[in-house]
Amino acid sequence: MAVIRRLPKYYRLLSALERKDTTRISSHELSEKLGFTASQIRQDLNVFGGFGQQGYGYRVSDLKREIGSILGLDSNLSMILVGAGNLGKALINHFPFWQSGFDLIGIFDVSEKVIGTTLGGIEVFSGAVLEDFCRTKKPEAAILALPTEFVQKSAEQLYGLGVKGFWNFTDGDINVPGACIEDIRLVESLMTFRFMMSRAK
Amino acid sequence: MAVIRRLPKYYRLLSALERKDTTRISSHELSEKLGFTASQIRQDLNVFGGFGQQGYGYRVSDLKREIGSILGLDSNLSMILVGAGNLGKALINHFPFWQSGFDLIGIFDVSEKVIGTTLGGIEVFSGAVLEDFCRTKKPEAAILALPTEFVQKSAEQLYGLGVKGFWNFTDGDINVPGACIEDIRLVESLMTFRFMMSRAK
Repeated sequence: MAVIRRLPKYYRLLSALERKDTTRISSHELSEKLGFTASQIRQDLNVFGGFGQQGYGYRVSDLKREIGSILGLDSNLSMILVGAGNLGKALINHFPFWQSGFDLIGIFDVSEKVIGTTLGGIEVFSGAVLEDFCRTKKPEAAILALPTEFVQKSAEQLYGLGVKGFWNFTDGDINVPGACIEDIRLVESLMTFRFMMSRAK
Repeated sequence: MAVIRRLPKYYRLLSALERKDTTRISSHELSEKLGFTASQIRQDLNVFGGFGQQGYGYRVSDLKREIGSILGLDSNLSMILVGAGNLGKALINHFPFWQSGFDLIGIFDVSEKVIGTTLGGIEVFSGAVLEDFCRTKKPEAAILALPTEFVQKSAEQLYGLGVKGFWNFTDGDINVPGACIEDIRLVESLMTFRFMMSRAK
Protein backbone atom coordinates (compact mmCIF):
# COMPACT_ATOMS: atom_id res chain seq x y z
CA MET A 1 0.00 0.00 0.00
CA ALA A 2 2.85 2.43 0.80
CA VAL A 3 4.25 1.85 -2.71
CA ILE A 4 0.87 2.67 -4.18
CA ARG A 5 0.74 5.99 -2.31
CA ARG A 6 4.13 6.85 -3.81
CA LEU A 7 3.21 6.00 -7.41
CA PRO A 8 1.08 9.14 -7.97
CA LYS A 9 4.02 11.21 -6.72
CA TYR A 10 6.29 9.62 -9.32
CA TYR A 11 3.60 10.16 -11.92
CA ARG A 12 3.21 13.83 -11.02
CA LEU A 13 6.98 14.47 -11.15
CA LEU A 14 7.39 12.57 -14.42
CA SER A 15 4.54 14.56 -15.98
CA ALA A 16 6.25 17.80 -14.96
CA LEU A 17 9.58 16.57 -16.36
CA GLU A 18 7.94 15.55 -19.63
CA ARG A 19 6.44 19.04 -19.96
CA LYS A 20 10.00 20.41 -19.61
CA ASP A 21 11.21 18.01 -22.35
CA THR A 22 13.45 16.09 -19.95
CA THR A 23 14.00 12.67 -21.54
CA ARG A 24 16.02 10.79 -18.93
CA ILE A 25 16.34 10.85 -15.17
CA SER A 26 18.48 8.88 -12.71
CA SER A 27 17.24 7.39 -9.45
CA HIS A 28 19.50 9.91 -7.68
CA GLU A 29 17.77 12.82 -9.39
CA LEU A 30 14.36 11.30 -8.65
CA SER A 31 15.51 10.96 -5.06
CA GLU A 32 16.47 14.62 -4.79
CA LYS A 33 13.20 15.81 -6.24
CA LEU A 34 10.91 13.45 -4.33
CA GLY A 35 12.69 13.14 -1.01
CA PHE A 36 12.67 9.32 -1.11
CA THR A 37 16.04 7.52 -0.99
CA ALA A 38 17.50 6.36 -4.29
CA SER A 39 17.44 2.76 -3.11
CA GLN A 40 13.76 3.14 -2.16
CA ILE A 41 13.07 4.42 -5.65
CA ARG A 42 14.93 1.56 -7.34
CA GLN A 43 13.06 -0.88 -5.14
CA ASP A 44 9.66 0.71 -5.87
CA LEU A 45 10.20 0.70 -9.60
CA ASN A 46 11.51 -2.87 -9.56
CA VAL A 47 8.28 -4.05 -7.93
CA PHE A 48 6.52 -3.33 -11.19
CA GLY A 49 9.16 -4.94 -13.35
CA GLY A 50 12.57 -3.48 -13.94
CA PHE A 51 12.32 -0.13 -15.63
CA GLY A 52 15.60 1.66 -16.23
CA GLN A 53 19.05 0.48 -17.13
CA GLN A 54 22.01 0.45 -14.80
CA GLY A 55 23.94 3.65 -15.33
CA TYR A 56 21.49 5.14 -17.82
CA GLY A 57 18.61 6.09 -15.59
CA TYR A 58 14.96 6.00 -16.58
CA ARG A 59 13.32 7.21 -19.78
CA VAL A 60 10.84 9.79 -18.51
CA SER A 61 8.02 9.24 -20.98
CA ASP A 62 8.23 5.42 -20.85
CA LEU A 63 8.26 5.39 -17.07
CA LYS A 64 5.38 7.85 -16.89
CA ARG A 65 3.32 5.74 -19.28
CA GLU A 66 4.07 2.54 -17.37
CA ILE A 67 3.19 4.05 -14.01
CA GLY A 68 0.06 5.61 -15.50
CA SER A 69 -0.92 2.20 -16.79
CA ILE A 70 -0.31 0.57 -13.38
CA LEU A 71 -2.47 3.25 -11.77
CA GLY A 72 -5.19 2.61 -14.33
CA LEU A 73 -4.99 6.06 -15.91
CA ASP A 74 -5.13 4.62 -19.44
CA SER A 75 -8.74 3.52 -19.05
CA ASN A 76 -11.19 5.69 -17.20
CA LEU A 77 -13.95 4.53 -14.89
CA SER A 78 -17.30 6.29 -14.81
CA MET A 79 -18.06 8.34 -11.72
CA ILE A 80 -20.87 10.41 -10.29
CA LEU A 81 -20.83 13.27 -7.81
CA VAL A 82 -23.34 13.11 -4.97
CA GLY A 83 -23.69 16.54 -3.37
CA ALA A 84 -23.30 19.70 -5.45
CA GLY A 85 -22.70 22.19 -2.66
CA ASN A 86 -19.63 24.43 -2.59
CA LEU A 87 -17.23 21.55 -2.18
CA GLY A 88 -18.82 19.52 -4.96
CA LYS A 89 -18.78 22.59 -7.21
CA ALA A 90 -15.15 23.27 -6.37
CA LEU A 91 -14.21 19.73 -7.37
CA ILE A 92 -16.18 19.87 -10.62
CA ASN A 93 -14.73 23.20 -11.62
CA HIS A 94 -11.11 22.62 -10.71
CA PHE A 95 -10.38 19.00 -10.70
CA PRO A 96 -8.72 17.09 -13.59
CA PHE A 97 -10.89 13.97 -13.24
CA TRP A 98 -10.28 12.59 -16.70
CA GLN A 99 -6.50 12.84 -16.19
CA SER A 100 -6.83 10.92 -12.94
CA GLY A 101 -8.64 7.88 -14.28
CA PHE A 102 -12.29 8.89 -14.07
CA ASP A 103 -15.00 10.29 -16.32
CA LEU A 104 -17.66 12.26 -14.52
CA ILE A 105 -21.03 11.24 -15.93
CA GLY A 106 -23.59 12.56 -13.46
CA ILE A 107 -24.19 15.02 -10.63
CA PHE A 108 -26.91 14.65 -7.98
CA ASP A 109 -28.26 16.91 -5.29
CA VAL A 110 -31.44 17.40 -3.29
CA SER A 111 -31.54 21.20 -3.40
CA GLU A 112 -34.02 22.79 -5.79
CA LYS A 113 -31.51 25.63 -6.16
CA VAL A 114 -29.03 23.51 -8.08
CA ILE A 115 -31.19 20.81 -9.68
CA GLY A 116 -31.50 21.58 -13.38
CA THR A 117 -28.41 23.82 -13.43
CA THR A 118 -25.23 22.78 -15.24
CA LEU A 119 -21.83 22.27 -13.62
CA GLY A 120 -18.78 21.67 -15.75
CA GLY A 121 -21.07 20.88 -18.67
CA ILE A 122 -23.07 18.29 -16.73
CA GLU A 123 -26.69 18.75 -15.62
CA VAL A 124 -27.43 18.41 -11.93
CA PHE A 125 -30.18 15.84 -11.35
CA SER A 126 -32.49 15.31 -8.42
CA GLY A 127 -31.54 12.56 -5.98
CA ALA A 128 -34.94 11.07 -6.83
CA VAL A 129 -33.65 9.84 -10.21
CA LEU A 130 -30.37 8.43 -8.84
CA GLU A 131 -31.65 4.87 -8.83
CA ASP A 132 -32.83 4.96 -12.45
CA PHE A 133 -29.59 6.63 -13.49
CA CYS A 134 -27.47 3.94 -11.84
CA ARG A 135 -29.48 1.14 -13.41
CA THR A 136 -29.09 2.55 -16.91
CA LYS A 137 -25.68 4.29 -16.85
CA LYS A 138 -23.97 1.96 -14.37
CA PRO A 139 -21.49 4.38 -12.79
CA GLU A 140 -18.59 2.55 -11.15
CA ALA A 141 -17.59 5.11 -8.52
CA ALA A 142 -19.04 8.05 -6.61
CA ILE A 143 -17.66 11.16 -4.99
CA LEU A 144 -19.51 11.68 -1.73
CA ALA A 145 -19.63 15.38 -0.92
CA LEU A 146 -22.94 15.41 0.92
CA PRO A 147 -23.57 16.18 4.62
CA THR A 148 -21.82 13.70 6.93
CA GLU A 149 -25.03 12.35 8.44
CA PHE A 150 -26.13 10.94 5.07
CA VAL A 151 -22.89 9.35 3.96
CA GLN A 152 -23.36 5.82 5.28
CA LYS A 153 -26.92 5.49 3.96
CA SER A 154 -25.94 6.95 0.60
CA ALA A 155 -22.96 4.60 0.23
CA GLU A 156 -25.12 1.57 1.11
CA GLN A 157 -27.75 2.57 -1.44
CA LEU A 158 -25.19 3.22 -4.17
CA TYR A 159 -23.33 -0.01 -3.50
CA GLY A 160 -26.61 -1.87 -3.88
CA LEU A 161 -26.98 -0.14 -7.24
CA GLY A 162 -23.58 -1.33 -8.45
CA VAL A 163 -21.34 1.59 -7.44
CA LYS A 164 -18.31 -0.15 -6.02
CA GLY A 165 -16.05 2.69 -4.92
CA PHE A 166 -16.38 5.90 -2.92
CA TRP A 167 -14.15 8.96 -2.74
CA ASN A 168 -15.39 10.23 0.60
CA PHE A 169 -15.12 13.93 1.48
CA THR A 170 -17.31 13.77 4.55
CA ASP A 171 -16.07 13.47 8.08
CA GLY A 172 -18.01 10.20 8.48
CA ASP A 173 -16.86 6.60 8.18
CA ILE A 174 -18.28 4.40 5.45
CA ASN A 175 -18.82 0.80 6.44
CA VAL A 176 -19.81 -1.13 3.32
CA PRO A 177 -18.11 -4.54 3.09
CA GLY A 178 -16.61 -5.09 -0.34
CA ALA A 179 -16.59 -1.41 -1.31
CA CYS A 180 -13.40 0.42 -2.21
CA ILE A 181 -13.11 3.53 -0.06
CA GLU A 182 -10.70 6.47 -0.21
CA ASP A 183 -11.23 9.14 2.42
CA ILE A 184 -10.19 12.78 2.31
CA ARG A 185 -10.08 13.75 5.97
CA LEU A 186 -10.02 17.53 6.06
CA VAL A 187 -10.79 17.96 9.76
CA GLU A 188 -8.20 15.39 10.77
CA SER A 189 -5.64 17.02 8.52
CA LEU A 190 -6.28 20.44 10.02
CA MET A 191 -6.08 19.10 13.57
CA THR A 192 -2.79 17.37 12.77
CA PHE A 193 -1.54 20.65 11.32
CA ARG A 194 -2.61 22.45 14.49
CA PHE A 195 -0.64 19.94 16.55
CA MET A 196 2.47 20.27 14.37
CA MET A 197 2.32 24.05 14.71
CA SER A 198 2.24 23.82 18.51
CA ARG A 199 5.28 21.60 18.52
CA ALA A 200 7.18 23.78 16.04
CA LYS A 201 6.99 26.84 18.24
CA MET B 1 3.93 10.99 13.77
CA ALA B 2 1.62 8.00 13.30
CA VAL B 3 0.22 8.57 16.80
CA ILE B 4 -0.49 12.19 15.92
CA ARG B 5 -2.46 11.15 12.84
CA ARG B 6 -4.58 8.90 15.08
CA LEU B 7 -5.32 11.54 17.73
CA PRO B 8 -7.85 13.45 15.61
CA LYS B 9 -9.68 10.16 15.02
CA TYR B 10 -9.95 9.60 18.77
CA TYR B 11 -11.07 13.18 19.17
CA ARG B 12 -13.74 12.84 16.50
CA LEU B 13 -15.12 9.63 18.01
CA LEU B 14 -15.06 11.02 21.57
CA SER B 15 -16.92 14.13 20.40
CA ALA B 16 -19.60 11.94 18.84
CA LEU B 17 -19.84 9.84 22.02
CA GLU B 18 -20.13 12.97 24.16
CA ARG B 19 -23.00 14.19 21.99
CA LYS B 20 -24.75 10.86 22.67
CA ASP B 21 -24.16 11.32 26.42
CA THR B 22 -21.84 8.31 26.66
CA THR B 23 -19.73 8.86 29.78
CA ARG B 24 -17.31 5.91 29.75
CA ILE B 25 -15.70 3.74 27.09
CA SER B 26 -13.28 0.82 27.24
CA SER B 27 -10.28 0.35 25.00
CA HIS B 28 -12.11 -2.63 23.48
CA GLU B 29 -15.07 -0.48 22.50
CA LEU B 30 -12.72 2.19 21.13
CA SER B 31 -11.01 -0.57 19.20
CA GLU B 32 -14.26 -1.76 17.63
CA LYS B 33 -15.29 1.71 16.61
CA LEU B 34 -11.91 2.88 15.31
CA GLY B 35 -10.48 -0.29 13.82
CA PHE B 36 -7.20 0.02 15.78
CA THR B 37 -6.26 -2.84 18.13
CA ALA B 38 -7.08 -2.40 21.82
CA SER B 39 -3.39 -2.70 22.70
CA GLN B 40 -2.54 -0.02 20.12
CA ILE B 41 -5.11 2.25 21.74
CA ARG B 42 -3.79 1.67 25.27
CA GLN B 43 -0.27 2.32 24.00
CA ASP B 44 -1.31 5.53 22.17
CA LEU B 45 -3.11 6.92 25.18
CA ASN B 46 -0.26 6.01 27.51
CA VAL B 47 2.17 8.06 25.42
CA PHE B 48 0.36 11.13 26.66
CA GLY B 49 0.25 10.04 30.25
CA GLY B 50 -1.98 7.28 31.51
CA PHE B 51 -5.60 8.14 31.00
CA GLY B 52 -8.10 5.50 32.09
CA GLN B 53 -8.18 3.04 34.92
CA GLN B 54 -7.66 -0.68 34.56
CA GLY B 55 -11.09 -2.28 34.26
CA TYR B 56 -13.01 0.99 34.25
CA GLY B 57 -12.22 2.32 30.81
CA TYR B 58 -11.86 5.96 29.90
CA ARG B 59 -14.03 8.90 30.89
CA VAL B 60 -15.21 10.24 27.54
CA SER B 61 -15.30 13.95 28.33
CA ASP B 62 -11.97 13.96 30.22
CA LEU B 63 -10.22 12.04 27.48
CA LYS B 64 -11.70 14.28 24.80
CA ARG B 65 -10.55 17.39 26.66
CA GLU B 66 -7.04 15.99 27.18
CA ILE B 67 -6.64 14.97 23.54
CA GLY B 68 -8.05 18.32 22.44
CA SER B 69 -5.50 20.02 24.63
CA ILE B 70 -2.64 17.91 23.20
CA LEU B 71 -3.79 18.79 19.69
CA GLY B 72 -3.88 22.46 20.65
CA LEU B 73 -7.63 22.85 20.19
CA ASP B 74 -7.98 24.81 23.43
CA SER B 75 -6.11 27.82 22.03
CA ASN B 76 -6.66 28.87 18.46
CA LEU B 77 -4.04 30.19 16.07
CA SER B 78 -4.87 32.93 13.59
CA MET B 79 -5.08 31.90 9.97
CA ILE B 80 -5.64 33.49 6.59
CA LEU B 81 -6.98 32.04 3.36
CA VAL B 82 -5.05 32.80 0.19
CA GLY B 83 -7.20 32.10 -2.85
CA ALA B 84 -10.96 32.59 -2.72
CA GLY B 85 -11.94 30.51 -5.73
CA ASN B 86 -14.46 27.67 -5.48
CA LEU B 87 -12.26 25.58 -3.25
CA GLY B 88 -11.48 28.48 -0.92
CA LYS B 89 -15.17 29.35 -0.77
CA ALA B 90 -16.10 25.74 -0.04
CA LEU B 91 -13.68 25.68 2.88
CA ILE B 92 -14.90 28.99 4.29
CA ASN B 93 -18.54 28.03 4.04
CA HIS B 94 -18.35 24.48 5.34
CA PHE B 95 -15.33 24.06 7.46
CA PRO B 96 -15.33 24.18 11.28
CA PHE B 97 -12.05 26.10 11.59
CA TRP B 98 -12.58 27.38 15.09
CA GLN B 99 -13.31 23.85 16.33
CA SER B 100 -10.10 22.64 14.74
CA GLY B 101 -7.73 25.08 16.40
CA PHE B 102 -7.77 28.05 14.07
CA ASP B 103 -9.47 31.43 13.78
CA LEU B 104 -9.83 32.69 10.25
CA ILE B 105 -8.93 36.39 10.25
CA GLY B 106 -8.42 37.30 6.59
CA ILE B 107 -9.12 36.24 3.01
CA PHE B 108 -7.05 37.29 0.00
CA ASP B 109 -7.48 36.97 -3.73
CA VAL B 110 -6.34 38.69 -6.90
CA SER B 111 -9.66 38.58 -8.77
CA GLU B 112 -11.65 41.81 -8.95
CA LYS B 113 -14.77 39.65 -8.93
CA VAL B 114 -14.32 38.60 -5.32
CA ILE B 115 -12.28 41.44 -3.79
CA GLY B 116 -14.60 43.48 -1.59
CA THR B 117 -17.17 40.71 -1.25
CA THR B 118 -17.74 38.92 2.05
CA LEU B 119 -17.24 35.21 2.67
CA GLY B 120 -18.31 33.67 5.95
CA GLY B 121 -18.51 37.14 7.44
CA ILE B 122 -14.97 38.10 6.39
CA GLU B 123 -14.16 40.64 3.68
CA VAL B 124 -12.01 39.47 0.78
CA PHE B 125 -8.98 41.73 0.37
CA SER B 126 -6.70 42.29 -2.58
CA GLY B 127 -3.39 40.45 -2.57
CA ALA B 128 -1.81 43.91 -2.76
CA VAL B 129 -2.56 44.55 0.93
CA LEU B 130 -1.37 41.13 2.14
CA GLU B 131 1.97 42.47 3.30
CA ASP B 132 0.46 45.27 5.37
CA PHE B 133 -2.10 42.89 6.80
CA CYS B 134 0.55 40.40 7.91
CA ARG B 135 2.66 43.13 9.54
CA THR B 136 -0.25 44.42 11.58
CA LYS B 137 -2.41 41.33 12.24
CA LYS B 138 0.41 38.76 12.36
CA PRO B 139 -1.44 35.68 11.13
CA GLU B 140 0.30 32.47 12.16
CA ALA B 141 -0.90 30.12 9.43
CA ALA B 142 -2.27 30.23 5.89
CA ILE B 143 -4.49 28.03 3.79
CA LEU B 144 -3.07 28.00 0.28
CA ALA B 145 -5.88 27.45 -2.22
CA LEU B 146 -4.40 29.40 -5.09
CA PRO B 147 -3.25 28.05 -8.49
CA THR B 148 -0.39 25.55 -8.15
CA GLU B 149 2.13 27.66 -10.07
CA PHE B 150 2.00 30.38 -7.40
CA VAL B 151 2.24 28.23 -4.30
CA GLN B 152 6.00 28.21 -3.74
CA LYS B 153 6.37 31.97 -4.24
CA SER B 154 3.38 32.70 -2.05
CA ALA B 155 4.65 30.46 0.77
CA GLU B 156 8.09 32.10 0.64
CA GLN B 157 6.57 35.57 0.81
CA LEU B 158 4.25 34.66 3.67
CA TYR B 159 7.00 32.93 5.64
CA GLY B 160 9.07 36.08 5.32
CA LEU B 161 6.10 37.96 6.77
CA GLY B 162 5.90 35.68 9.82
CA VAL B 163 3.40 33.07 8.64
CA LYS B 164 4.94 29.84 9.88
CA GLY B 165 2.55 27.15 8.69
CA PHE B 166 0.77 26.24 5.47
CA TRP B 167 -2.24 24.03 4.83
CA ASN B 168 -1.56 23.35 1.18
CA PHE B 169 -4.42 22.44 -1.17
CA THR B 170 -2.43 22.83 -4.37
CA ASP B 171 -0.79 20.01 -6.23
CA GLY B 172 2.61 21.70 -5.79
CA ASP B 173 5.36 21.11 -3.28
CA ILE B 174 6.29 23.82 -0.82
CA ASN B 175 9.96 24.04 -0.01
CA VAL B 176 10.39 26.57 2.79
CA PRO B 177 12.90 25.44 5.44
CA GLY B 178 11.49 25.88 8.92
CA ALA B 179 7.87 26.10 7.84
CA CYS B 180 5.23 23.66 9.04
CA ILE B 181 3.48 22.13 6.05
CA GLU B 182 0.39 19.95 5.81
CA ASP B 183 -0.60 18.91 2.30
CA ILE B 184 -4.01 17.83 1.06
CA ARG B 185 -3.19 15.85 -2.05
CA LEU B 186 -6.41 15.51 -3.98
CA VAL B 187 -4.92 14.30 -7.27
CA GLU B 188 -2.75 11.72 -5.53
CA SER B 189 -5.72 10.53 -3.51
CA LEU B 190 -7.87 10.11 -6.62
CA MET B 191 -5.10 8.25 -8.48
CA THR B 192 -4.63 5.93 -5.51
CA PHE B 193 -8.38 5.36 -5.50
CA ARG B 194 -8.27 4.57 -9.23
CA PHE B 195 -5.55 2.01 -8.57
CA MET B 196 -7.45 0.39 -5.71
CA MET B 197 -10.54 0.10 -7.90
CA SER B 198 -8.56 -1.72 -10.62
CA ARG B 199 -7.24 -4.20 -8.10
CA ALA B 200 -10.66 -4.73 -6.50
CA LYS B 201 -12.28 -5.89 -9.76
